[in-house]
Amino acid sequence: MFDRVWLHANLATMDDDAMGIVMDGAVAARDGRIAWVGPRADLPGPAAETSDCDGAWILPGLIDCHTHLVFDGDRSGEFEQRLGGATYREIAEAGGGILYTTRQTRAATEAALLEGARPRLAALAAEGVTTVEIKSGYGLDIETEVKMLRVARALGRDGGPEIVTTLLAAHALPPEWSGRRTGFARFCAEQVMPAAIAAGVVDAVDCFHDSVGFDDAQTRIVLDAARAAGLPVKLHADQHSAFGSAQLAAAYGAISADHLECSDAAGLAAMARSGTVAVLLPGATYFLRMDRHPDVAAMRRAGVRMAIASDMNPGSCPARSLLLMLNLACTLFRLTVPEALLGVTRHAAAALGLSDRGVLRAGLRCDLALYRVTRPAELCYWIGGNPCVGSVVAGRVSHGLSAR
Amino acid sequence: MFDRVWLHANLATMDDDAMGIVMDGAVAARDGRIAWVGPRADLPGPAAETSDCDGAWILPGLIDCHTHLVFDGDRSGEFEQRLGGATYREIAEAGGGILYTTRQTRAATEAALLEGARPRLAALAAEGVTTVEIKSGYGLDIETEVKMLRVARALGRDGGPEIVTTLLAAHALPPEWSGRRTGFARFCAEQVMPAAIAAGVVDAVDCFHDSVGFDDAQTRIVLDAARAAGLPVKLHADQHSAFGSAQLAAAYGAISADHLECSDAAGLAAMARSGTVAVLLPGATYFLRMDRHPDVAAMRRAGVRMAIASDMNPGSCPARSLLLMLNLACTLFRLTVPEALLGVTRHAAAALGLSDRGVLRAGLRCDLALYRVTRPAELCYWIGGNPCVGSVVAGRVSHGLSAR
Repeated sequence: MFDRVWLHANLATMDDDAMGIVMDGAVAARDGRIAWVGPRADLPGPAAETSDCDGAWILPGLIDCHTHLVFDGDRSGEFEQRLGGATYREIAEAGGGILYTTRQTRAATEAALLEGARPRLAALAAEGVTTVEIKSGYGLDIETEVKMLRVARALGRDGGPEIVTTLLAAHALPPEWSGRRTGFARFCAEQVMPAAIAAGVVDAVDCFHDSVGFDDAQTRIVLDAARAAGLPVKLHADQHSAFGSAQLAAAYGAISADHLECSDAAGLAAMARSGTVAVLLPGATYFLRMDRHPDVAAMRRAGVRMAIASDMNPGSCPARSLLLMLNLACTLFRLTVPEALLGVTRHAAAALGLSDRGVLRAGLRCDLALYRVTRPAELCYWIGGNPCVGSVVAGRVSHGLSAR
Repeated sequence: MFDRVWLHANLATMDDDAMGIVMDGAVAARDGRIAWVGPRADLPGPAAETSDCDGAWILPGLIDCHTHLVFDGDRSGEFEQRLGGATYREIAEAGGGILYTTRQTRAATEAALLEGARPRLAALAAEGVTTVEIKSGYGLDIETEVKMLRVARALGRDGGPEIVTTLLAAHALPPEWSGRRTGFARFCAEQVMPAAIAAGVVDAVDCFHDSVGFDDAQTRIVLDAARAAGLPVKLHADQHSAFGSAQLAAAYGAISADHLECSDAAGLAAMARSGTVAVLLPGATYFLRMDRHPDVAAMRRAGVRMAIASDMNPGSCPARSLLLMLNLACTLFRLTVPEALLGVTRHAAAALGLSDRGVLRAGLRCDLALYRVTRPAELCYWIGGNPCVGSVVAGRVSHGLSAR
């Protein structure tokens, strides 16, 4: 006896590179896990509850594997000023940029951060996103970094998507550490990280490896500490210049390297060998109007798995939609439809080091997304709009199609 | 006594080029029109019903002044094939492209077209869009062109946005007219147009003036017939090459010329003199990955009013969001925030020849859009997501904030 079955659905199980299509399929859940998946005609047993999907498509619940969703201080004001002619320097001198968000985030209560983040998370959840990674990185001090991750974890208790938390203390240099970047990297490794680990709010560690961020030696301080603590690592990699980030990520066996606009074929090949997932963030490429795009052809040749994420953040990518990132990845980076959809399911799970989701397969978590579309390609084709008609997190109906 | 007032709202009346901001304002409606608008403290009288907006922003209901929203036959399948490596030629030879949509639209019943279009219109309505222009142009025969416009008009009776209809019979050459493009233009002018006018479903006439569409002489056949019938004209103008469309539109006193990627300064100056509105379609520029962008600087210098529309269509811009077009217009074309918001309100009304909406001003239609934002710039800044919390069409609450 299953707890629940979903019937009269077409499935994109994502269990093979052609999306694992099953027409007129069924999914059965028991104890929060997928108990059976396959053609409806072969469904082995009855269920306590049945959802008739009326021809909707079911995919694994989508996974947004790179966000900065918790913050206070959006930058819509700067956006307006910049379009009106203000320069980046003028805005920075007026106290703008990432340090504006840092000041606001430091000043915000946990309740205010939670209230601000909820509609952003809800926008993703409404699209069928069932797992969301959230990074810290606007605190840049012990108290606020831990506060951000506590808020992220609290979002995960709202009954919506599951939240995975990444400590990104080494995101930018706060004013009180001006001129002491290596010292700040040590502070991140030796003080922020232990405090966040003690608070029980860290699933992984990330670092902004960039010519305007942290260099090799500084980044290694952070990554070594993460490794010593037994935490998986990720990297903001080669976004603005060829900085050797892909190689560094591979050398540390990072679960993902993210951005990669300027990575070269050798770096990508190293990532393939280390099993490091390439997280593409087409929203940032678009919003920053970058000419340089990730070398998708080289990733294909090397056999690097590609994930796609929203990068939702107030500065370089105020995106509130993961479906839109599918269109951007196809339009700007020319990903194929199966590549794009694998990028927000199976490969996004891998980018978070999660082997229990991202595919419709018996034994895995029952995270489902249901869409009223005629084919999965519609999820990539449309610009805006939301065909999601239901989602399921660990077997529990999160929104949409009710039982009958 | 007003029928209804909206209180505790900030207003962007769009009644001046700085967006006509009124903090802590009020709007009062009577008989479907705005009876009063201004600072709440000055509100002159009581109302039968009151909506407390709790600090939301009110703008004039948004206007999407260029869509091809009624069709059957989306092209998500071709999208997938093209990304998978199929060429345009292969797709065309397999019966794809616009003629696929034409075949499907011809074959579809009115009920099927209506059912297909409703969720697309609903996506716009949910964003605060209260007026939508819909073009024909996938029928390319008398019966289907009229059918499309009848369906468009029927959408306008659903209680959501008001629909404005444009006959675009001269959109592409159907196979049965192959090699007889001038003959088809005459057919559009002499047979399709009279039939559509007789059916009472035409507000304006449009034509695809392009090197791959209809040339000057062919376009004049269509525009002359529209003028003789007393209908305002619009033009698909200079999208793929400098084709003299802006000048032609100006010569005919067109209410709008749309696309304009390749228009030159002289053409834009002519448009300014004729009062022709420039309709920018950044979604198509994005989706087609066009290097050439409309010359916004020249439009500013010439004093051409700029509108922004979704261009929602299955081929070159499957967009289901007008808010997203604001972000695209700012990001790709560097429109300022006031320019972008005027482009979906006051100037979009002008692009449809409508002087009764697009601004919050006493005497105009009470079409409102309510947003939970801290400043109007947020409507341009975010990529995806929907902060609309209510809309009002001709004084009637269409969705959102209920009375109390």
